[in-house]
Parts: sequence; C-alpha cells; structure tokens
Amino acid sequence: MDSKTVAAILADFRDGRLSMEQALDKFKDLPYEDLDFVKIDHHRMLRQGFPEVVFAQGKTPAQVAAIVERLAQVNGNVIASRATPEMYEATRALVPAARYHEVARMIVVRRDEVVVDEDRFILVMTAGTSDIPVAEEAALTAEIMGNKVTRVFDVGVAGIHRLLAQRQTIEEANVIIVVAGMEGALASVVGGMVAKPVIAVPTSVGYGANFGGIAALLAMLNSCAAGVAVVNIDNGFGAGRLASIINKMR
Amino acid sequence: MDSKTVAAILADFRDGRLSMEQALDKFKDLPYEDLDFVKIDHHRMLRQGFPEVVFAQGKTPAQVAAIVERLAQVNGNVIASRATPEMYEATRALVPAARYHEVARMIVVRRDEVVVDEDRFILVMTAGTSDIPVAEEAALTAEIMGNKVTRVFDVGVAGIHRLLAQRQTIEEANVIIVVAGMEGALASVVGGMVAKPVIAVPTSVGYGANFGGIAALLAMLNSCAAGVAVVNIDNGFGAGRLASIINKMR
Amino acid sequence: MDSKTVAAILADFRDGRLSMEQALDKFKDLPYEDLDFVKIDHHRMLRQGFPEVVFAQGKTPAQVAAIVERLAQVNGNVIASRATPEMYEATRALVPAARYHEVARMIVVRRDEVVVDEDRFILVMTAGTSDIPVAEEAALTAEIMGNKVTRVFDVGVAGIHRLLAQRQTIEEANVIIVVAGMEGALASVVGGMVAKPVIAVPTSVGYGANFGGIAALLAMLNSCAAGVAVVNIDNGFGAGRLASIINKMR
Amino acid sequence: MDSKTVAAILADFRDGRLSMEQALDKFKDLPYEDLDFVKIDHHRMLRQGFPEVVFAQGKTPAQVAAIVERLAQVNGNVIASRATPEMYEATRALVPAARYHEVARMIVVRRDEVVVDEDRFILVMTAGTSDIPVAEEAALTAEIMGNKVTRVFDVGVAGIHRLLAQRQTIEEANVIIVVAGMEGALASVVGGMVAKPVIAVPTSVGYGANFGGIAALLAMLNSCAAGVAVVNIDNGFGAGRLASIINKMR
Amino acid sequence: MDSKTVAAILADFRDGRLSMEQALDKFKDLPYEDLDFVKIDHHRMLRQGFPEVVFAQGKTPAQVAAIVERLAQVNGNVIASRATPEMYEATRALVPAARYHEVARMIVVRRDEVVVDEDRFILVMTAGTSDIPVAEEAALTAEIMGNKVTRVFDVGVAGIHRLLAQRQTIEEANVIIVVAGMEGALASVVGGMVAKPVIAVPTSVGYGANFGGIAALLAMLNSCAAGVAVVNIDNGFGAGRLASIINKMR
Amino acid sequence: MDSKTVAAILADFRDGRLSMEQALDKFKDLPYEDLDFVKIDHHRMLRQGFPEVVFAQGKTPAQVAAIVERLAQVNGNVIASRATPEMYEATRALVPAARYHEVARMIVVRRDEVVVDEDRFILVMTAGTSDIPVAEEAALTAEIMGNKVTRVFDVGVAGIHRLLAQRQTIEEANVIIVVAGMEGALASVVGGMVAKPVIAVPTSVGYGANFGGIAALLAMLNSCAAGVAVVNIDNGFGAGRLASIINKMR
Amino acid sequence: MDSKTVAAILADFRDGRLSMEQALDKFKDLPYEDLDFVKIDHHRMLRQGFPEVVFAQGKTPAQVAAIVERLAQVNGNVIASRATPEMYEATRALVPAARYHEVARMIVVRRDEVVVDEDRFILVMTAGTSDIPVAEEAALTAEIMGNKVTRVFDVGVAGIHRLLAQRQTIEEANVIIVVAGMEGALASVVGGMVAKPVIAVPTSVGYGANFGGIAALLAMLNSCAAGVAVVNIDNGFGAGRLASIINKMR
Amino acid sequence: MDSKTVAAILADFRDGRLSMEQALDKFKDLPYEDLDFVKIDHHRMLRQGFPEVVFAQGKTPAQVAAIVERLAQVNGNVIASRATPEMYEATRALVPAARYHEVARMIVVRRDEVVVDEDRFILVMTAGTSDIPVAEEAALTAEIMGNKVTRVFDVGVAGIHRLLAQRQTIEEANVIIVVAGMEGALASVVGGMVAKPVIAVPTSVGYGANFGGIAALLAMLNSCAAGVAVVNIDNGFGAGRLASIINKMR
Repeated sequence: MDSKTVAAILADFRDGRLSMEQALDKFKDLPYEDLDFVKIDHHRMLRQGFPEVVFAQGKTPAQVAAIVERLAQVNGNVIASRATPEMYEATRALVPAARYHEVARMIVVRRDEVVVDEDRFILVMTAGTSDIPVAEEAALTAEIMGNKVTRVFDVGVAGIHRLLAQRQTIEEANVIIVVAGMEGALASVVGGMVAKPVIAVPTSVGYGANFGGIAALLAMLNSCAAGVAVVNIDNGFGAGRLASIINKMR
Repeated sequence: MDSKTVAAILADFRDGRLSMEQALDKFKDLPYEDLDFVKIDHHRMLRQGFPEVVFAQGKTPAQVAAIVERLAQVNGNVIASRATPEMYEATRALVPAARYHEVARMIVVRRDEVVVDEDRFILVMTAGTSDIPVAEEAALTAEIMGNKVTRVFDVGVAGIHRLLAQRQTIEEANVIIVVAGMEGALASVVGGMVAKPVIAVPTSVGYGANFGGIAALLAMLNSCAAGVAVVNIDNGFGAGRLASIINKMR
Repeated sequence: MDSKTVAAILADFRDGRLSMEQALDKFKDLPYEDLDFVKIDHHRMLRQGFPEVVFAQGKTPAQVAAIVERLAQVNGNVIASRATPEMYEATRALVPAARYHEVARMIVVRRDEVVVDEDRFILVMTAGTSDIPVAEEAALTAEIMGNKVTRVFDVGVAGIHRLLAQRQTIEEANVIIVVAGMEGALASVVGGMVAKPVIAVPTSVGYGANFGGIAALLAMLNSCAAGVAVVNIDNGFGAGRLASIINKMR
Repeated sequence: MDSKTVAAILADFRDGRLSMEQALDKFKDLPYEDLDFVKIDHHRMLRQGFPEVVFAQGKTPAQVAAIVERLAQVNGNVIASRATPEMYEATRALVPAARYHEVARMIVVRRDEVVVDEDRFILVMTAGTSDIPVAEEAALTAEIMGNKVTRVFDVGVAGIHRLLAQRQTIEEANVIIVVAGMEGALASVVGGMVAKPVIAVPTSVGYGANFGGIAALLAMLNSCAAGVAVVNIDNGFGAGRLASIINKMR
Repeated sequence: MDSKTVAAILADFRDGRLSMEQALDKFKDLPYEDLDFVKIDHHRMLRQGFPEVVFAQGKTPAQVAAIVERLAQVNGNVIASRATPEMYEATRALVPAARYHEVARMIVVRRDEVVVDEDRFILVMTAGTSDIPVAEEAALTAEIMGNKVTRVFDVGVAGIHRLLAQRQTIEEANVIIVVAGMEGALASVVGGMVAKPVIAVPTSVGYGANFGGIAALLAMLNSCAAGVAVVNIDNGFGAGRLASIINKMR
Repeated sequence: MDSKTVAAILADFRDGRLSMEQALDKFKDLPYEDLDFVKIDHHRMLRQGFPEVVFAQGKTPAQVAAIVERLAQVNGNVIASRATPEMYEATRALVPAARYHEVARMIVVRRDEVVVDEDRFILVMTAGTSDIPVAEEAALTAEIMGNKVTRVFDVGVAGIHRLLAQRQTIEEANVIIVVAGMEGALASVVGGMVAKPVIAVPTSVGYGANFGGIAALLAMLNSCAAGVAVVNIDNGFGAGRLASIINKMR
Repeated sequence: MDSKTVAAILADFRDGRLSMEQALDKFKDLPYEDLDFVKIDHHRMLRQGFPEVVFAQGKTPAQVAAIVERLAQVNGNVIASRATPEMYEATRALVPAARYHEVARMIVVRRDEVVVDEDRFILVMTAGTSDIPVAEEAALTAEIMGNKVTRVFDVGVAGIHRLLAQRQTIEEANVIIVVAGMEGALASVVGGMVAKPVIAVPTSVGYGANFGGIAALLAMLNSCAAGVAVVNIDNGFGAGRLASIINKMR
Repeated sequence: MDSKTVAAILADFRDGRLSMEQALDKFKDLPYEDLDFVKIDHHRMLRQGFPEVVFAQGKTPAQVAAIVERLAQVNGNVIASRATPEMYEATRALVPAARYHEVARMIVVRRDEVVVDEDRFILVMTAGTSDIPVAEEAALTAEIMGNKVTRVFDVGVAGIHRLLAQRQTIEEANVIIVVAGMEGALASVVGGMVAKPVIAVPTSVGYGANFGGIAALLAMLNSCAAGVAVVNIDNGFGAGRLASIINKMR
C-alpha cells in the first residue's frame, strides 16, 4: 500500500466522502502510516481521542512541516510543541491554517469547534514569570483539546499573600496545573488547599544548585500534600494533556 | 482552650449531641488541635473530604495509637500507613475497631458505609511480585476512600503477552495506577494503550544500578506516553489518594 | 608541660584563685590541651564566647565523658550533641551536674546563670513532627547559650492555615530557625513573610526520592525568598549556634 | 482597578501629594500590581524594608526596563541583578538615574540618602580573583541597602599568611561574607577565627571535578566551624541581603 | 625504523608486491606505527578481524584525513565515526574512494567485497525518530563489517501495536540492536519476546530529567528481561561492532 | 480454568501422559499460570528455550519453594538466584532434587542431560577474589543451560603478568564474561586482546568512591575496547544467560 | 606444579637453603601461586619491594589466616588491612608472630629489622579525632615499610592557630599525609605552606551532606594548592604505601 | 607602600643591585603585592621553590599580561596555564621573552638555566591521542621546573602489547604521570608494573556516560594498584608540579 493510497483515503475522510466507519474499514490492515522518517499513528485519534502531537525539537523544519501537513489532512486540530519560528514558516507554507504561539513555542492548527464545558476549568498557575513559557505550553494544549483554562501567574510562595488572594479561583478549579522552578514549593501549598488533582510541572528555571530543574522536581515528588503528581521537567504538554483527560471524565 | 475541651467537643459530635454545624461553630477559632507532638487538622475532613492520614513510619507505637484514637473519635474511617505490627498492637488497645493489613503495612479503621460507584473502578497494576506491597497500599487507600478497585499483578513488559491479555480490563478502567520497579517500563506501555489518567509509582525494587528506585522514577518521568504522572518512590498512599480524587470527579 | 599542670591551672581559674588574666598568662605558651585523642581548645571560650561543643557521635562513651569532664572544669556550661544514653551514663559518673535531653540527644551541663534578653527571642519552627529532634537540638543549643527560644512545631505548608495562625509570633521573632524535611518549602514561605534572618535546616526526614535530606537541602538553597541561609542536613546545633550569635548582636 | 489608577497613586506618593499612610489606604485592596507578565509587590517595601529586587537573568531588556521604571516610581532605590549591558541601555532610556556596575552585573538606582552606621561594617572576602563578580554583587547589594562594606579579595587558604595578615579586619567586622569557589575552604578558616555570623557563598569558579560549584557548596555545608551558613551557588545578592538584615539588627 | 620504511611496506602490501605473510614478517618487530600523534595498530586487523576504527570526534580534519589515508593503504575497508563534513572534505582529498554518510556521521572507505551470510541478519530498531542517527551508525558499522542489516525504526512502546506488527521480523533476526532514548523501555519488551542477544544502546535523546541519556541507560541496565546487555550512551559503533562479532560466530 | 486443572495438565506432561504438543494445545488459551502472588510463564520455555528463572531475593522461603516446585513439575532444570540457605531448606522439602550452591547463592534443580558442545566454552574471569560469588552465579547459570565453562579468577590488571599468562585460554574461548569491581579495567584489557564477545559484569566490590559498583560500571561502559557490553551491577545471572544464548548460536 | 612444591621452595628460601637467585630460578615458570580462591604474587616483592598486602575486608577469617600464613613463609613482614579481631584470632593460630593494631584495624607480622633513615620522616596529620583510624592505617603501613613516621592529630582548619603551632614540624617533614573528613580543607592549607608532596586522604567522617566522604574528596581534588594528590576515601593503606615509595627515593 | 616602591625593589633584585637577603629584608613587612585584582605572592618562590603560576582561564588578556609581566620582573621563569592565543599576544607585547605552546595552552617565560639531573626522568604517558593536551601541560610544567621529561603517548590498555613494548622505559622512570580519559584503566596497569610514584590525571575525554571525566576519575581512585594518587580532572599543571617536587627529592 503506497502512500498515495493513504493520502486518498485521508482526503476522502476529511472531505466527507468516507464516513468514519468506512475509513476505519479501509485502515484496518494499516496500523500506522510510514513517512520514511516517522510512523504516523492514525489510530491514536480513535484510541486516545486526540491525534499524535508533534514533538518538534530536534527535527528539521521540513520534517515538522511534512508531519503537520499529513496530520492536518485527517484531523481538524493539530499541535506541534517546542517549535521554532523557522519550523512555523516551513509549516505555514504547507498548512495555511497554522498559527504560531511564540511564548508557548507551539504551532497550532485549530479548525474544529470544540465543545467546552464552561463550568469546569483547568487552572494553570506559575510561581514566577520565568515559568510562563512552560505554563503556556500546558494551557494551550488543554485549550485546543477543548477545555476552558484560567491562568494565574507569578504567585510564588515567598509572597504568600499573593497566593492567598487567589484562594477562590483555586477552590473553584476542577484540575490544577502548578508550574514552578527554583524550590518548587507552590505545588505543596496549593495541594494542601484543595481536594482537586494537582499536576506539578518542575521547570528548569533557576540557577546555582538548581541543576536544571532537579531541585524543583525533588521538592514536588516529596510534597507533603497528597493529591500531587509530577510530570517531567518543563513538560508543559504532558501536564496539559493529562489535565484534559481528567477534566473530561464524568 | 485546653485539650479536654477539645475532647469534649469531639465526643459530643461523635455521639450526636452536636450536629456538624454546631461542632464547626465551636471549632471556628480552632484551626487545629495541638496534641503536643502533632497538630491534628480536623478541618481537613471538610476541606478535603478525608481526614489526615497518619504516616506512621518514624513514630513510636504510642504516638501512632494516640493519633489514631483521636482521629477515630471524630471520623468514621482512619488509616495509618507504613505501620508495623507493634504499632497495630498499641493502636488496637485504644481503638478496638482497628484492623491491620500486613502486606500493605496499614492500620485501618473502617466504620462508615462508603457509597461506591460500582461502574467506575481504579485499576492497580504491578510489573512484578515484589511491587505488591506498594500496590496494596495504593489499593487499600483507594478502597477505604470509597472506590472500587481491581488488581492485576505481575504483568511486566518482558512478558508482553501477559500484559496484552489484560487489555480489556485496562480499557474499562477509569483511573490506572501502575506500580513498577526495575526499569519501570510498564507505565509507558499502559499509558500508550488508553486515554485514561495513569498514575505511575516507582518502587525501590531491584538491585545493582537501580539506586533505590531512581531508575524506575526516571523512566516514568521520561515516559514517551502522554497522560502519565508520577508520585514519589514507593508512595502507594499518594497514588491511591490521587486516584480517588480523580475517580470521584464528575 | 604535663596534663596535671594544666588541670591545676584550670582548677585554680575555676575556683577563683587565678583571675582570667593570670590564667591567660599561664596559658600563653599553650594554645590547646592535648588529651591524646583530642586537642581541647580552651582559648575558644575567650575567642568565640562559648567553649568547644563536643560532637559525640562516633566517639566512645569513655571519650565523651572524659572530654566533658575536662571542659566542665573550666566552663560553667558544656554541651555534647548526638549523644546516646550510654554516653550520658558514662558522663554522669564523672560530672554529676550533667543532664540528658533525650529528644535532642544532648548532654548538657548548665551551671552559669545566663542573662537572657527576654525581649528578643529565637523562633524554632518545624514542618512536621519528625523534624522535632533536630529542632530541639537547635533550641536547646540556643537556650544554653543564653537566648530565649519559642517553639512552633508541625506547621508545614500543606496546611497553610496552620502556619498563618502563627503569623504574629513569626513577626515578633528576632531570628528564625526553620527545620523541615520532605520538600523543605517552609523556609521559603516564612522567609517571604518577614525581614528577619531565617536559618534553614534541612532534615533527613522523608522517604523515596528524598535522598536523606537532599531534596529539602536543594529546595532551601533555591529558596525564592531572600534572607534565607542554610546549614547542613540535620545540623540543629549549627543553626542554634548561629542564631545565638546573631541574636546577641547589638 | 486599571493600571493608570495605580500609576497615579504611585506618582502622588512619590511626589509627596499622598503621605505613606494615605497611599497605603488606597492600596489596601490591592496587594500587588499586575504588570501582565509580573506581579509587583509594593507591600514588600513596608513588610521587608526594601522593594522587590529584579532578577534580570532570563528577562528581555524591555521587561527589565519596564519593571525597574515602575519600581523607581515609588522607591528611591532599586536594583536589578544579573543584568546585561543591553538591559542597562533599555533601562537608562526610561530611568535616567540608573547606573550600571559591570563587574557586579547590576543596574542600580540610588537616590535616597541612606543612613549608614559607620561603626558596623560588613566584610566581603574572596578566596580568588575569579570570585570577585559574585563578591561585588553581594557588596553592592549591602551598600545600597545602607551598610558600610569592606572588601578583602584573593586571600585563599593556600597562602594562609595572606589571610592571617587580615586578622584585625576580620575581628572588627560585624558580619562576614565569604565568597569562594574551588574547594571553598576559606569559610571554615574564617568561621573558626571569630564569633561573628559568616555567610558562605560558593561560586561556580573552578574546573574538573568542581561541578559548577558543588565542591565548594558541599565543603561549606560540611564546615567544621559553627556559625557558618550557606546560600546558593553564585548567589551574591542573597548573601548581601541577609548580611544587611543581620547588620541592622539591634 | 622511520615512517618512510613503514609507508613502503604498506604500499608494497597494498599493491601486491608483498604477500600478507611477507608483510607480517616485516612487521614482526613493529607492533604499531607511530604517526607522532597516534599509534596505528596494524596487527589489529589480524588479531580482531577489522582494522582500528577512527573515532574522529575531537580530532582536526587534517588528523582524520591522515589516519584514514594510512589505514586505507593497507586495508580495503576503513571507517571513521563521529565525522563532520569538514573532516570528510579533508579526507576525500587524500582518499578519493571515501564516502560520507550524513545521518550516521561516518566516513567510509569500502573496497573489499565482503561475503554476507544472507540468512543471518542483524536487526536494528529504534524507539523514536530522533534515535535514528545512532542507529544508522550501528547499522552502517555492521554492514561494512560484512553483515546483512534490517532496519525497523520508530516503534516505541507507547504504541505497542506498532511494535507487535514487527513480531515476525524480530523473531527471524539473529542479533538485535535496540536504540532508544527517553525511558528506554523498548529493550525490555524486545528482550522478553525472543531468545536472541539484544544489545541495547541508550541515546541522549530526550529532555527534562533525561540527563543526557542516563534515564535510558539505567532503564536498560535494570531491564527485567534476561539476555540484554548495554553499551555506552549513543555508542552506535560499539553496538554494531559487537553485533557483527556475534553474528559471525558459528 | 482453576489452578487444579493447571496442575493436572502439568503433572500429565511431566509424567509423560501428555506429549509436549498435546500439552501445548491444552495451554493455548492459557498464556500463564496464576499462582496468586506470581504469574508463571510456561510459554517461555518454548519461546526462549529455558524456563523463567526465580529471582529469590525479596521473596519468602515459602514463596520460593512454591514457585520452584511448580516450575520443576514441568521442567527438568530450574534455578533460583540470590537464594538464602533458608530458602533452600524450604525448597528441598518440596523438591528433593534441589541442590544449593553456597558461593553462587543459587538453588539448582538439574535433571535433564544437557548436550554440551565441548569445543566451545564460555570463559568466566574475575579481577579479584571478592568478585567470585558473582562470577559463580554467571558460571553456574551458563552450565545448567548446557554450556562448558572455564573459570580464571583473580587476574586483575594491577598484576598484568598474571593476566597475560592466561592469553591462550582467552584466545580459545568462544564467549568471555569479565567480572570486576573496583576500577573495572579488566574488561578493557581483555576486550582489546580478542575479537570475541565480552560481557562485562561490574560488581559492588570495593570501598570509598566505588559507590556500590558505579565506578566499575562507568569504566566498563566507557571501555576503549569495542566488543564489550555491560549488564547490571552484580548481575551474574544475566551475564550467564546472555553468554549461553550467544554460545549456542550457529 | 602442585602447591606442595611451592611450599617447599618457599620454605627453603625462608630458611636459607636457597638463595634468592636460586629461588627465582625455580619460580621462573611460576608467575604466581594459586591458592584456589586467590593468586599470590610472590614476584611482587622483587618487583615492587614489598609483598602483596592482604585486603581483609570481605574475606572470611579462615581465608585471611591462610593468605597471611603463606605470605609469612616467604616474607619477613606482612600486613593485612581492614581486619577484624576475629580475623586476627584465626591468623594468630597459624602465625604466632602476628600482632593486631586495633585502631588501625591491621594485622601485622613484623620480623625483619628495617633500616630507617631517621633524618627523613613522613608526617601524618588529621583534621579531627574521628579521622585517626584511617591515619593510623597510613602511619602503620609506612612504619612497617621502613619509614620514620610523626603523627600530628586534630589540627583542623577551624582552629587555625592549632595548625600553625605545628609549622616547624610541617616544614621539616619529607612527605606529608593529610587525613580529613568533613570539608577536607586541611590539605589545601598544608599544601600551601610547603613544597613537599602532600597526599590527601578523604575520610567518610561527617554527616548530612557529607555523602560518605564525597565532600572531602571533592574539596581535595579542587585544592587551590599545587602539589596535592588524592587517594580513595578512607584509603589509609594506599597513602602510606605511596608515601613510603616517595620517601625512599634518592 | 605604593606599587612603585615594590617595582623598584623588584628591579634592584632582578638586576643584582640587591642580594636575595637584602631584598627579603625590604619585603619583610610585605607578605604579598596587591595588584588590585590579584595579590602576588613573592614569598612563594622562596617558600616553595617556584613562583606562583598564573591560572589564565577566566582572566582577561590584559590581566594575564600584567601578572606575567610583574612576575617576570623578579623571576627568571614564569608560566601561565590555560592561556589562549589572545592572552599570549597581550603578554608578548609586555614580555618579549614569552613563548606560547599551543598544544599545552601555556605561556612560558624561560630565562634561567635550570640544572637538570639527566639520570632521573619523569615519564608522561597517555592512553589516547585526545589526552595529549593535558599531558603536554604536565610535561611542559615539569620541564620548566627543571626536570627531564620523556613522553609515551597513545598506549591505552585496549592494545596491551603497545603498552608492554614500553616496559623498559616505564621501569627506568623516576616518577610517572598517567593521563587518561574514558575508563582510565592505564593508571592501574602501570601502577602494578613498578614501585614508583604514579600520578594519575583523569581527562574529560570521552562521551556518553563519561560525565566529563568522572568515569576516569572514579576508576583511578579505585585503582587496585597501590602507589597511585590522583589529581583533578584535566589538571596537567598540578600533576607536573607534584612530579617535579617528588623528582627533586633526595
């Protein structure tokens, strides 16, 4: 089965000439599409509710553009994380609908109207201003996956009154993402304030004995508050994805 | 306010002579009870839906018994984690309703009928047999907090067919806890199979360059599957608590 | 100069038969006393205002007793840290005035009336109950060096209201010692509340990826609050000594 | 409350049209000012005696300039640490009173006459010449906060006579900051010479198994001299700030 | 023995004027050739079946070119790993037969017809697309040493069905090289599927708490599957060389 | 299918009432047997040529005995590694054919005549005498899996003539296992002498900055000799198993 | 050649029936003696001037005794380091001349009159009293190898006047061994005082962030004084041996 | 005492108008010269036999030039290590006698005829070609301090015959410096061959799990050969300096 055949099926599905069931039938012997340098997993959308996200870092602009283009043929929404402006330029040439979020370093294709449950929001908090890029990666990921997101930035624990001023927002949130570098203490304080899932994202922000985020990572793992789980250093996408999964459970 | 007064309020509430509202009024100037060596946070039950859990490790049997007794005066259900048989003996003398779960190393007081939503279960999986104590700590925590729990043990990735044989159970679960030592790969494989929250618990099981669980911890943090978050090494309680929070969201 | 001569000088000074100046003259060619296995630095009392403190850990009961005895001949107050009950028994046989503080694991000889400035107190705080032994080592050290000490224990950041309830005490303190294990976040929160020196003591309390106190140590070093300095893991004595030095400045 | 209102209050206070009390009244519902990318904590000046210091590293020149400008509207003195010449250029355009200290890498706005107690000075020492930038950051911080500072550089322990030649200065100091990379031994030697607070700053100076300052950090934490506390690697500002707090106690 | 003599012998051997036995005779007092900055070990070809491979990283283009030229005078096949395009340019000027493989970053001189046993192939697998350069280094090394190589890329465990689709190829392979970064779990899953030697190559691919490949390295060392051995991070050459040695055993 | 049914099939197969093919048919819907606390993978013998090996460490004597018994019902040969004498006592009561190798800490059931190819032997070498237990674990594993094994112990590189005296044996070996602690240099020297697969096993032998085998592990991973691969610290079994797989290839 | 033959040669040499040259002739095909569990290198005495030293740790008392006995048959002086009293008891039964040094944990057989050059002494210094066992291991090793040794203990840098009081001794020494735990600063100070070889021995003495001697090890490696080299943590024997080699050069 | 006075004394001494004794008299109240950014220790030449060496890394070309110039006024020979060509250009303008050694990265002023003892040489060995820059730093340091140096490069243990071919040179050396990266095994092998002091220098050469020289450092610290001591990673100067001290002892 050559890649032209795949492209034809994808185009037919995208344009409505094939129903999802019909497309699935055609794909049933085809677990993934081989683009030579990457295997695209079209089943994932069905299995996990959202297509494979492109982790752009380390790929060439041309590779990023090609993968986004292929994914965009069959999906309404696509995101590429850790993308540079150069990658965006290459992508936009192939996918005019693509947009670039500079702070979050993400390329986003957003065409589907997503049904947002306005009553349940994900709260994304940061301890400092330097944590914002990672927080935006998390927030944008959650938004494009159909969640309402509220942002509260720069409320680190060394100014505890700034944090307490947000108490009401914290209590109303459905899922909370805490993004913090340095000593990472924000996760513990927030985790002790509510009985909501808290996803902690250590960032590599800091200097000296911070060790690229290890200090914050260890602090979050050792949080004295139950209900806190941790993702990898700077992994805003992972936090946003997990928050979205949880926020949609009912 | 001396501790006798506190005890009287607690007893009145426990025995129904004070309604919860009346008790709360009496407590309003009293954010916590001071037991000399520990501050018990009676507000937490209202704030977080479950009372403070006793982390028994490093405390004396007498201290554990005293804290459990006080908590049991005002709560139907109480748990103490990382408890030794000696701690249990001391506790049972004060709280006859206490039970001991040897594998999970937990003391449990369970008197309230908890309403379980039988349709939504938490799946607790282990890679090997040595991971079971941590897994039981997670499972028991979730159960006493009112969740249905299903256990699938010893399905490590080196025998991938054993894991695949559990595919249906995995797909039906609402929240999944993956407990694994050694290389911790189970979390990645499971995380890639479903779009459910996966809470990964690295264990200190292993030898050589395992470093007391660091190998598994790093593997889980670096999981190529989105939707996976990690708690501290051997922290079964934290995983069970977080899974319970998520499982009850709606 | 044999050790009997030294003992005679010491006894004369202690009993008032020699003034300090006369004793110093006699000692001028003798910078320290050689007890075979340890050199006792009698000058230190003059140079630093308090005699050498015995770090008992790793010494035999007989050695601890001998050193305490010699120091007690010339000083009113002596302390030995990290001491076991066995060491205390051996010491008490030689120095009847010695007392043992079990929680702080210290042997204390306290005979001089120390002038305490009641208006300036050192506040010793802990995040949890397991941090108390280290905190008591710090508190007792500061007390025997002539400081008023206030203790506030078990006010970790996961129950932020418990900490805020202590705000007045925190603001009135002159120097603050924060003792915390696990994620060590208490130092940052307290450091942000006041413009007082905060001495942070990480403890080896915790489990999993705590690494014997490294998680707390790193968190404290990376504190986003200025005005926080750190001593070694579990080093209650060092914190108490430094707090005493600062508290007496004027 | 929009940011123009804030600006007006600040201007009125700066220019004397509002007393501090009147300004505080106006601010009472406003714990901090939101500049979109950063929350400025104007209360801090009152709470901690000095305004928030700008940690410039990782911010854009425009962001640094904007924050310094806003802080300078309400404070006589402002400092920005880890600043590049580019950041200074941007700042000077908005705040003509700003000055740049190249060695210390700091932007300083210094307009208030600070009352210095000339009898109590902070001594800033370095082991080598490469430690000077960090030492200058500490010294300048302390100076702008109103302290007299004496500098003694390049007196590492491998030339112990150079250090001993400074004995008198060391004994006369009120607070001592020791800045050292490589093996960090200077803190121990100085700490043993006096009964004054010693704040040790490890630097990332060195090579081979220095590990970016870890060797010096560990040495300082393990100092055999009591009375030594440690701040983060290269954290000259933190040391200067803490020394200032201590030096002003009475 | 000067280097001209050596060159003459080499030329004679290359051009057939000396048989191998005759050349060996001449070399018998000469265990290696001294090129001033490197000793070339001509015996190795006889002792180990393949000449010394040039590790180009850290050498100058001129050095790389000189070493390859000398080796190519006496060997049909030569490889230089970790080579830059600049090194290749310098080499090609001296050795026209040299070719450059950009993805694998290798310079290859391939003139001898190698006898390949087509029935026994080495399988080189990667978990992701970023692992391909290391995998190509391994594959190319094995090919030039006379092995048939099959490549299966981008079959990480988070999409387990993509891996299982390759089951037949995996079972037919004689030796398997698994190249993976991030959590490195692929080695365990593959190692559990077959009773063939599995050589695991951790790569420095990843971010956050990956630590330049340590996460994958530890995971592979702790693999729960027996039959897995590990080479250094990113050491594709070493894996290819070892696989070749094993594949040729009979 | 209850466990009695499983037991019956196993007994029939063991006693010859069922051929292997018949037994396999019965097992075809049964990928593994559930012993409550462990899943036994009877398919493995067919898939990998040798039954699951029991890793006894961390299990109770009763558990070890039960697993060995069950495996011994269907396999001629069974081994349990890291076994204590107590585990052996419990096992022998159930499996009289079991034997205990004290140095290797292994329980062995050996009933099948294994066909050994006497011409191809595995060489197991150690650098010191303290490495022998790990080496014996490797050697015994290889022997029971049907390989001829030659042992050469205590030939560390600090006495290079002792190693060179074994040159002939080294050159005749088919696969070489090098077991070394301390600086682990033996693997590099041996790896440079031959073109045979070298499996390096770092041991936790040593003291000081050995870090439980990390020094040797790193040295082996960084070996300048190609053809060396590494297994986990002290993992004699893994080395023996891999050596056996390689030795039997043809 | 069986071990009886070896024993006979050894006995003949010991008792003078064979000259050294004759013995060497007999040994010429025998590079070492195989004692089953250890290869004894009798050539070393000739090659290195002192027989193999027994590293007793990790061996059984019987093994230690057997090795010492065999070495004592051919050498006048033998030492076993890291020996327990039990090992000594076993050894004394076979070698009545053996003596035990409890502090240094060494078994010593000392029968040869060693010619000591009284004008050149090795100085062994410690920073604290807890470093003495390692220092004694070094001192005793040097003494039995024929060197004059001077001990100066407990002169850590926090009491710099105690160290300076030893200046004359330091300047007269020929080789200096500095043994220190905690921050290890003594090596740097001493290294800067003289132009003599300084061998630094970090010890595992300390607590908190000492990490079993790593803090001292790093400090010593990063010493700002030239002329300092480091041996492994607690490796008193190695330091003593190296000092002896240097001290005897002329 | 201003710096002109210092310069005048130095010039008089250099030109012979003052004897050393007269110069020392003038210097007696002047332990070091303060050059603002660095204190030059002119006493060191007398105390340690060679003037302070300039560690150029991290200094500006102008600073390096100024220090070298001042040292060259009073010393015949001066060296600056880790110097760039730019530093050399700046230095040569002030000190025409300066020369630059590119491989060793050193600036050298060499005017005094040094008396070399031709019978005692220092042997500098490397394992690979990439270790040569560090080795040259060591060799050049030793040479300018008046020692004969022999170089043997690229004799790593993976080609043991290349090393053994140098046996005679090794045995004749008086002091041996072993420079090695990767697994650092060369030090152990050489250390076992002779009873001479071996100074091991780990280099940061390598890749993967080499960790910038830690692998080699640990291997050398754990060397099974006695008589080996280690200096910091890449510290060729330190090794050369120490070797010179030892080589001149008699």
